[in-house]
Amino acid sequence: MDSLDDLNRRLKAFAVQRDWEQFHNPKNLAMALAGEAGELLEHFQWLTPEQSAALGGDKKEQVALELADILIYLIRLSERLDLDLVAAAYRKMALNESRYPVEKVHGDARRAEEYGS
Amino acid sequence: MDSLDDLNRRLKAFAVQRDWEQFHNPKNLAMALAGEAGELLEHFQWLTPEQSAALGGDKKEQVALELADILIYLIRLSERLDLDLVAAAYRKMALNESRYPVEKVHGDARRAEEYGS
Amino acid sequence: MDSLDDLNRRLKAFAVQRDWEQFHNPKNLAMALAGEAGELLEHFQWLTPEQSAALGGDKKEQVALELADILIYLIRLSERLDLDLVAAAYRKMALNESRYPVEKVHGDARRAEEYGS
Amino acid sequence: MDSLDDLNRRLKAFAVQRDWEQFHNPKNLAMALAGEAGELLEHFQWLTPEQSAALGGDKKEQVALELADILIYLIRLSERLDLDLVAAAYRKMALNESRYPVEKVHGDARRAEEYGS
Repeated sequence: MDSLDDLNRRLKAFAVQRDWEQFHNPKNLAMALAGEAGELLEHFQWLTPEQSAALGGDKKEQVALELADILIYLIRLSERLDLDLVAAAYRKMALNESRYPVEKVHGDARRAEEYGS
Repeated sequence: MDSLDDLNRRLKAFAVQRDWEQFHNPKNLAMALAGEAGELLEHFQWLTPEQSAALGGDKKEQVALELADILIYLIRLSERLDLDLVAAAYRKMALNESRYPVEKVHGDARRAEEYGS
Repeated sequence: MDSLDDLNRRLKAFAVQRDWEQFHNPKNLAMALAGEAGELLEHFQWLTPEQSAALGGDKKEQVALELADILIYLIRLSERLDLDLVAAAYRKMALNESRYPVEKVHGDARRAEEYGS
Repeated sequence: MDSLDDLNRRLKAFAVQRDWEQFHNPKNLAMALAGEAGELLEHFQWLTPEQSAALGGDKKEQVALELADILIYLIRLSERLDLDLVAAAYRKMALNESRYPVEKVHGDARRAEEYGS
């Protein structure tokens, strides 16, 4: 079975067992996800880009668990909104392919609106 | 093949073709992820919790694409940090199971540190 | 003296004394500010809107200190970027006045782009 | 009059005139603030720390207006929560002075909990 499907099933059971689905509306889950994204930032805020690419040991595991928290809320949000997260990712990648053609953006990472398309 | 593995492969190719891996250090990717989490919030900020659970049409698709953006950066970060995102999610769920025993937290969603364990 | 000017002076001295200005480039400070905004969210994520308006005691003080952290990074960022934060706020308010005329948006809090100007 | 007091008064009038105070509960305002912090990140995410310190022209004005948005929501939140933002900033600075003594943290920007105090 696909890893996201298994996680989804287990996360839903976890919430139901604790009677936490009453708190898991999309507004609250979006806040929880963004809160975890904030914790992720805190691990990197004073590091240089080079240091951020060379995490080891404890720090790396802490970051792994932050990413896990974000994935968990992403899966919960998709379930609550009845969305197919993976299908949405493929749709978004197709949009990105047409927005950022290789020959136009090679080596240049401005935001889409800054290319003055 | 697992959906996250396929997405990972395609996202890496997308970045390599555009010579964007130079920008994709973990510090920058963490910022990009948190920026997308901020966009997600903007969809929900003035909605009541009830309204947030009843999105339809265009708005729902916009939210789906925000979640896709977050997933995309989550996958990229895991790849750049050489982390197994799904394995980390299982580790985190095991931690949550022991931190929040059903009999202790039933119907009560305070944060872990507020349970005064 | 204006409160923001006094805070600015003290925050700069705090950083200089610790030799922390080397870390206080705008990129890092933007991350630190957004990390604090994430902590702010965590206080409110499982509360109803009504509960969020009725904080008391300890919780209220914790939120006050999160707001303080955000103000502190806002002042530091403005100083590092050589920006006048209060003047920018007046400019932004003037923009908001013209974007959201009273007769058009009364009682309706959609985002600007959703008014289909 | 102090700049924050004047801004506070004008922001409150702006919301009252539009009948927007109904949306301005602390939960919603915290989300709006964090959404703006996300927009701030997007300006800096692909820049090096050095580039982030050398913004000019349009980009600098865009960042100034993002900082203004954050200040605006910070002031609104403080008003809705009946908090004195500047007094909280002084309390937080006093805490920081005792948490980060100069002789202990000189030139070292780890997070407080990482000093293993």
